[in-house]
Amino acid sequence: MSLQLKVRLLGFASGTPLLVLDDTAAYSLGVRPHDRLLVRRGGSEVIAVVNVAQNLPQDIALVNDEVARALGLENGDVVEVLAVQPPRSSRYVRAFLSGSSLSYEEVRAIVEDIVRNALDEVELAALVTAANQRGLSIEEAYYFSRAMVETGERLDLGVSPVLDKHSIGGVPGDKTTLLVVPIIASLGYYIPKTSSRAITSPAGTADRAEVLMPVNLTLEEVRRIVLKVGGCIAWGGALGLAPADDKIIRVEYPLAIDPFLVPSIIAKKAAVGATHVVMDLPVGRGAKVKTLEEARNLSRILVEVGRRMGIKLACVATLGDQPVGLTAGPALEAREALSALLGEGPADLVDKAASLAGVLLEMVGIASGKAVALEVLRSGKAYLRMREIVEAQGGDPDVKPQDIPVGDKRFTLRAEREGMVIWINNVAVATAARLAGAPKDKGAGVELHVKMGSVVKAGQPLLTVYSEHSAKLQAAEEYLKTTMAVSVGKPEESMVLAHLHYEPLISLEH
Amino acid sequence: MSLQLKVRLLGFASGTPLLVLDDTAAYSLGVRPHDRLLVRRGGSEVIAVVNVAQNLPQDIALVNDEVARALGLENGDVVEVLAVQPPRSSRYVRAFLSGSSLSYEEVRAIVEDIVRNALDEVELAALVTAANQRGLSIEEAYYFSRAMVETGERLDLGVSPVLDKHSIGGVPGDKTTLLVVPIIASLGYYIPKTSSRAITSPAGTADRAEVLMPVNLTLEEVRRIVLKVGGCIAWGGALGLAPADDKIIRVEYPLAIDPFLVPSIIAKKAAVGATHVVMDLPVGRGAKVKTLEEARNLSRILVEVGRRMGIKLACVATLGDQPVGLTAGPALEAREALSALLGEGPADLVDKAASLAGVLLEMVGIASGKAVALEVLRSGKAYLRMREIVEAQGGDPDVKPQDIPVGDKRFTLRAEREGMVIWINNVAVATAARLAGAPKDKGAGVELHVKMGSVVKAGQPLLTVYSEHSAKLQAAEEYLKTTMAVSVGKPEESMVLAHLHYEPLISLEH
Repeated sequence: MSLQLKVRLLGFASGTPLLVLDDTAAYSLGVRPHDRLLVRRGGSEVIAVVNVAQNLPQDIALVNDEVARALGLENGDVVEVLAVQPPRSSRYVRAFLSGSSLSYEEVRAIVEDIVRNALDEVELAALVTAANQRGLSIEEAYYFSRAMVETGERLDLGVSPVLDKHSIGGVPGDKTTLLVVPIIASLGYYIPKTSSRAITSPAGTADRAEVLMPVNLTLEEVRRIVLKVGGCIAWGGALGLAPADDKIIRVEYPLAIDPFLVPSIIAKKAAVGATHVVMDLPVGRGAKVKTLEEARNLSRILVEVGRRMGIKLACVATLGDQPVGLTAGPALEAREALSALLGEGPADLVDKAASLAGVLLEMVGIASGKAVALEVLRSGKAYLRMREIVEAQGGDPDVKPQDIPVGDKRFTLRAEREGMVIWINNVAVATAARLAGAPKDKGAGVELHVKMGSVVKAGQPLLTVYSEHSAKLQAAEEYLKTTMAVSVGKPEESMVLAHLHYEPLISLEH
Repeated sequence: MSLQLKVRLLGFASGTPLLVLDDTAAYSLGVRPHDRLLVRRGGSEVIAVVNVAQNLPQDIALVNDEVARALGLENGDVVEVLAVQPPRSSRYVRAFLSGSSLSYEEVRAIVEDIVRNALDEVELAALVTAANQRGLSIEEAYYFSRAMVETGERLDLGVSPVLDKHSIGGVPGDKTTLLVVPIIASLGYYIPKTSSRAITSPAGTADRAEVLMPVNLTLEEVRRIVLKVGGCIAWGGALGLAPADDKIIRVEYPLAIDPFLVPSIIAKKAAVGATHVVMDLPVGRGAKVKTLEEARNLSRILVEVGRRMGIKLACVATLGDQPVGLTAGPALEAREALSALLGEGPADLVDKAASLAGVLLEMVGIASGKAVALEVLRSGKAYLRMREIVEAQGGDPDVKPQDIPVGDKRFTLRAEREGMVIWINNVAVATAARLAGAPKDKGAGVELHVKMGSVVKAGQPLLTVYSEHSAKLQAAEEYLKTTMAVSVGKPEESMVLAHLHYEPLISLEH
């Protein structure tokens, strides 16, 4: 049951070795889409996932770069193809679909096959969907965390403790990390922070930091920089830490579910060797976690899975009802973070950063952690350390907030009536910033002039959109005209809102 | 947020409009794999699913034939691409994942988007997996059946009643349809039978029938032939009946789950206008349904969903512990079916066909249906009608069983010891037949010389493998040497097997 097929190169890499053949050839081989073929030439072979086309010559196989590279193929080369059984992990995925729990060995096989692209996207989508329907057990979450770490690169600093901070995200404008890292590093601790780029938000931490310094570091550069200046802010995407995670997210994203959230977070932290982690869970209407109850449940699982992985973890629920600080968008946020390090930050941002840093410091034995954090901010010690980090990563340490360019096309949204700001719509702020060009256009974004609880008069500016292009500014402006981004209530309604003001953080499950 | 990209044609059709672009271009557009892009040129546009490659020039878009055809593209043409929201049905799939029941309107939108390839495979895999985890409600099964029928072609014979027969499959050698169709047609009823080709078995009904006559008919040919001679046996794959079903099966198959079994069956029957259907549920160790309890549950759902679709349906549980008759493989089975129509059929095949036809006849008011069916078999009336059907479909009505060529490479498996045949392994028989070349090589297959309960001496032939190619025969032979295809027990063990002999059919839920 094998065929000799003439190769045509597709000319692109797509992650998984892929072979497209005609319907009739597939029928001869007894394979269907998503089955596997062994593709052979000379002494080399590779397993490819089958795609079926309806209109190819029967003796032609289209192959992507993964197949071509594995076998050194050029157009016109002849390969032998034959059907093979799906990998062991396909069976484990099927068992999971039919209700079985997964053992560590099974999880390990699945994760290995995800990493080497032996599980195809239909199987991966089924795994993710079934995990979403059933929920992962604590054991399974631990097994996935462990297997994800073990199948990827790891950072070994050779020191202890190693501190880290993570936010599950969902709130625009959250540049807290740009303060926490220099605060912690300025106190002599190691914090090798890796961050993501924006997926659906106007800026990820890597996008913000990139305004100040290069963030595409290698693992070796991360190691060298952190050992030298105590901290870094690197883009995690190219470091190869827990690579299965990235592939799982690729399938979770279009389905808008994230059943692997816990292993995904814990694995990334374990892969950098973190021993103490503070985890920010923003809670609020526009955030990922809607209620404190949800945050408590998630916290319990994170702490327990972290414990099994040897990580001491503290979860902190923070107010996620409005953006953090006053800005959303890479350059605007980099400006605001730098201002905060220079003593000019908005109260909520400074409080949040000092609180999270404080929890982390207390975890390693520093009393009054928040006060200590506020002091290194006030004294300029954290700013000086940030200069060293920026310089070590190859940025300009002398850059001032006002030096950072922002978009010169602007639109200001104004209050239609007098009243109190009762809600700021995170999704609307994020969408307006993205329409204006963020995160790709670094200078695009939104600056808020008010926060929840602000009292405004009719005509007073609520927010300004910045863009580098008139057409994008216009798209954001049109969007804001049909969306309630900032809700202004009557003054007499304001009473009930008191408890929504910024409050001390609620710490969960140390 | 749009880009101008230069087109390179991939040169194949893959079902869904597909556009491959580079990572960086995808980031600029704010799209990720499985997102949708609107692709425009001149006045035309098409929605394509995004695939991301890591090593393409940033200004290049690779497009498959679906995109090229929609826009009349040639290599080097420039298209405008921009991100668009996923279709409405993506939201319904997400709602289903999060536990919502689906309304008819939502199911209809999902099915429409499956048919026009607007839902991509990750979403389809998620839908199928979630349906498997939760189970479809009776309402949802009915909604899917209805939507599948309404979004496809329909056969309108303009007569009533319209009879039909279906088996959920899973037993090799089941050529019952080749007897039931002429029996029913010879009694003046209409039976427009559409069948599938083999997926994992050595022969589907379409593969068997194709040995006797062309089966690739158009819907108009089906109509004409059935109105003329009462029945047909056509390949259903190209008729466009309930086309969503074929796409769902494409995703169910690699996951080895079939949560859409009920709507899938009911929709195909409703699409040919069937008013009365007999449904065969083979039950046994090697069959799809393992226990009578399972068969009863499935039957209840089939009958109820059928009722809502206006179809009177009777389910019959049949013994599925061993192949039906003595042969598996297209030509061997066509021979056996023709012999049975000529009065020389194995007892179990004849009994099964007459029983199923009998249930169907009784549903339309014929008393003693099975006796009537046996009588038209015995009298040769059914054979004469089969000749007319074969002729109407363009086959040779004069063909005799011995005229049908079978593979001349043969291997016979013999009993190692004396005893009674206690089990015939369906999977092993099917695998041996497939290794020998079935269903592609029509002459390949397996002929059994014994059935369960047969008493054999050491050295007596158990089965013969037929093949058209020595290498394939050898593969089948090697496989059979390491697999227990036919289990022979000691004579004194035979007592306990009495109840596994062929028994009267058990009718469920008329």
